[in-house]
Amino acid sequence: MQAYKVLEIKQSVFADNDKQAQLLREELKKKKVFLLNLMSSPGSGKTTTLTRTIEALKDELSIGVMEADIDSDVDAKTISDAGVKAIQLHTGGMCHLDAEMTRQGLEGLETEGLDLAILENVGNLVCPAEFDTGSVKNAMILSVPEGHDKPLKYPLMFSICDVVLINKIDVLPYFDFDMDKCREYVHMRNPKAQVIPICAKTGEGIDEWANWLRIQVKAWQES
Amino acid sequence: MQAYKVLEIKQSVFADNDKQAQLLREELKKKKVFLLNLMSSPGSGKTTTLTRTIEALKDELSIGVMEADIDSDVDAKTISDAGVKAIQLHTGGMCHLDAEMTRQGLEGLETEGLDLAILENVGNLVCPAEFDTGSVKNAMILSVPEGHDKPLKYPLMFSICDVVLINKIDVLPYFDFDMDKCREYVHMRNPKAQVIPICAKTGEGIDEWANWLRIQVKAWQES
Repeated sequence: MQAYKVLEIKQSVFADNDKQAQLLREELKKKKVFLLNLMSSPGSGKTTTLTRTIEALKDELSIGVMEADIDSDVDAKTISDAGVKAIQLHTGGMCHLDAEMTRQGLEGLETEGLDLAILENVGNLVCPAEFDTGSVKNAMILSVPEGHDKPLKYPLMFSICDVVLINKIDVLPYFDFDMDKCREYVHMRNPKAQVIPICAKTGEGIDEWANWLRIQVKAWQES
Repeated sequence: MQAYKVLEIKQSVFADNDKQAQLLREELKKKKVFLLNLMSSPGSGKTTTLTRTIEALKDELSIGVMEADIDSDVDAKTISDAGVKAIQLHTGGMCHLDAEMTRQGLEGLETEGLDLAILENVGNLVCPAEFDTGSVKNAMILSVPEGHDKPLKYPLMFSICDVVLINKIDVLPYFDFDMDKCREYVHMRNPKAQVIPICAKTGEGIDEWANWLRIQVKAWQES
């Protein structure tokens, strides 16, 4: 039996996405549910990073994950196997999620009693950056093989992220990736962004990232 | 002095992109200009692959390259340094190019006397797949670190590509990438797609790719 639901997301009917996002955040605040929007290119390691994040936090936080994908169910199965509530959102070809689509996902996930809801957005560095999903914080993953110049080429994505995880640091010896330059370029786009190098495969750096996330969730619930 | 122009692309006014794309292809046919649309995720190695392609073909074909980017000029400089005509297209945040935007690019590039015009599309596996640019053939690059499951997750992109270059094969030992499964998944989406493993960094496989492209250009010019 499948341990996760699959939900076909409908196009939004609202013209003012920023307003819908703000409303959604206010509702989440009342319910004390922290929503994280996780973005990256295809293949940067979002799902593996989530699996590690769940391992690190599931004993202290109640977690639910929405896996947005154009039409496969690969990721929801992986997350469900990691032992938390998961739902697969099919976007029907759409390249991003907006606040109303995220709301549909949260309703499908059922947030009652959740501390942390995570949206794994569609793998894309362009469009998801343009739509506020209603999340409390935005995170993105840049993987070493993609190159340290990406903040120069995808400015909006880097400017809206509160934290940038630099994944796949185990392969640093095989790529021309300059971590110092990467930090410099990220901070050009957003001086306040946290940059955390990780390796989701080996678990390196996951403690620092989980700690950052834990602090954000607590602050949201207590404020 | 800059050896390339920078062009700010305007939003299209045409509702029927397929018709505009067909018209553009007919004009290119008359001029005997072959247009290749090259797509991939951010960081898959489009620009390095183009540099190698130019090295392999510039003595026999007159080549021009359009570098579409949200707002940087990094790539046009690299291509211009490789010794062919290059133009940087700024999409102003847009996540793809359609046929009319490609036409603006071709006018900026000036195609008179060109055999091969290459459009390096915006780094994105979702939106560019939805818009016919007017190209004669579509190519995409999937790099080893992204994983062999990507044809499952980005079905449209793989279904519209005539050739899929699997780049960064030099790092195969460090990633769980199954080349046979990748071919199988690509062919699930498009049984006719050519799959060519390459390493743009070392030049491995570039001969096979350049040969494929040379044959396509000649066939287009002679038909």
